[in-house]
Amino acid sequence: MNSNVHIPGYDFGSKSLPPSPISLEELRALEQACGFDNNAREQLRKAAVVLAPHAEDLVDKWRSIIAQHAEMKQVFFGPDGQPDETYKAAVKKRFVQWVIDACEREHDQAWLDYQQEIGKRHTPAKKNQTDAAHTGDVVPLRYLIAFSAVVSTTIRPILDDAEYSTFEKAEIQDAWTKSMLLHLALWTQPYVAACLW
Amino acid sequence: MNSNVHIPGYDFGSKSLPPSPISLEELRALEQACGFDNNAREQLRKAAVVLAPHAEDLVDKWRSIIAQHAEMKQVFFGPDGQPDETYKAAVKKRFVQWVIDACEREHDQAWLDYQQEIGKRHTPAKKNQTDAAHTGDVVPLRYLIAFSAVVSTTIRPILDDAEYSTFEKAEIQDAWTKSMLLHLALWTQPYVAACLW
Repeated sequence: MNSNVHIPGYDFGSKSLPPSPISLEELRALEQACGFDNNAREQLRKAAVVLAPHAEDLVDKWRSIIAQHAEMKQVFFGPDGQPDETYKAAVKKRFVQWVIDACEREHDQAWLDYQQEIGKRHTPAKKNQTDAAHTGDVVPLRYLIAFSAVVSTTIRPILDDAEYSTFEKAEIQDAWTKSMLLHLALWTQPYVAACLW
Repeated sequence: MNSNVHIPGYDFGSKSLPPSPISLEELRALEQACGFDNNAREQLRKAAVVLAPHAEDLVDKWRSIIAQHAEMKQVFFGPDGQPDETYKAAVKKRFVQWVIDACEREHDQAWLDYQQEIGKRHTPAKKNQTDAAHTGDVVPLRYLIAFSAVVSTTIRPILDDAEYSTFEKAEIQDAWTKSMLLHLALWTQPYVAACLW
């Protein structure tokens, strides 16, 4: 586990984080809605074995896809219309850690609180605050959702090389997709009115 | 294709539908963000062959999962706190058709306009209007997102029985996931402020 990870702005488990407005009971209901059950938890443990060593490769791949997208790449642009490389590098370390955490972390209160923090960091509430950056103030929701398809499906080449059976690979893929969408559901809370979320 | 489908409230291609506020150019940018490319289009054609005959089975399975979920099942409840079976049955026919359309339809202006309509029918803008129903006025966004994990992953048993190679099945699965998330990104437009979507 990652209890001693030191990455600037990686506030998982920090006492400075407010409690998520989402309760653990609501989280369990969301897990059920995703089909994220004990088997999915077990599959993510297997995913960790193959994905954690490639976490940075995955983020590099995702970043290369974002860089080719005229609109998505702008989430990293500063006021001068150029990529803010300092911000990109800072966020990248936490994105790599997210891959590992998504496979390894229990879904407890500390995890829930940090998901809310990640959600806010995609919206005007906190997008630039952690890194004292001056990029655009939102990752548009439509791209957050759309790009989750890329995050869900691009683990396949790594799975293909792993020493699991075809059945196991399919189960791991499904668990990863469910995990991605559970994160996504939580991250959208700061985007919408409470009565619609 | 389904140009002569007659299902009450299935307004695909209807002149009564307003144009989507989302442009075709924005749709192409979203497709790119999903990794929804020509190969994905081709894979969905294969998906159609195996999924279309099972479209109603899939919706029955999804409905059975919703029925077991204390909160999700309430989207079908009328003012008396009981399931509105008339509404459920009306929506179901369109849900079945959606499975087929997701595999078969071109992503053109008519398709785009109808996705906006589907999005609205999940929100207070139009949830009950089509069927003159009196159920709750929103499918909470978190459940729309979370349940898309179930819609994405539950095609696997059908794929397993299909006469495609392991590689092809994986490609079809990925294309289905991308398609689901593209739909989801579009459907969320009525949920959020324009500056955040």
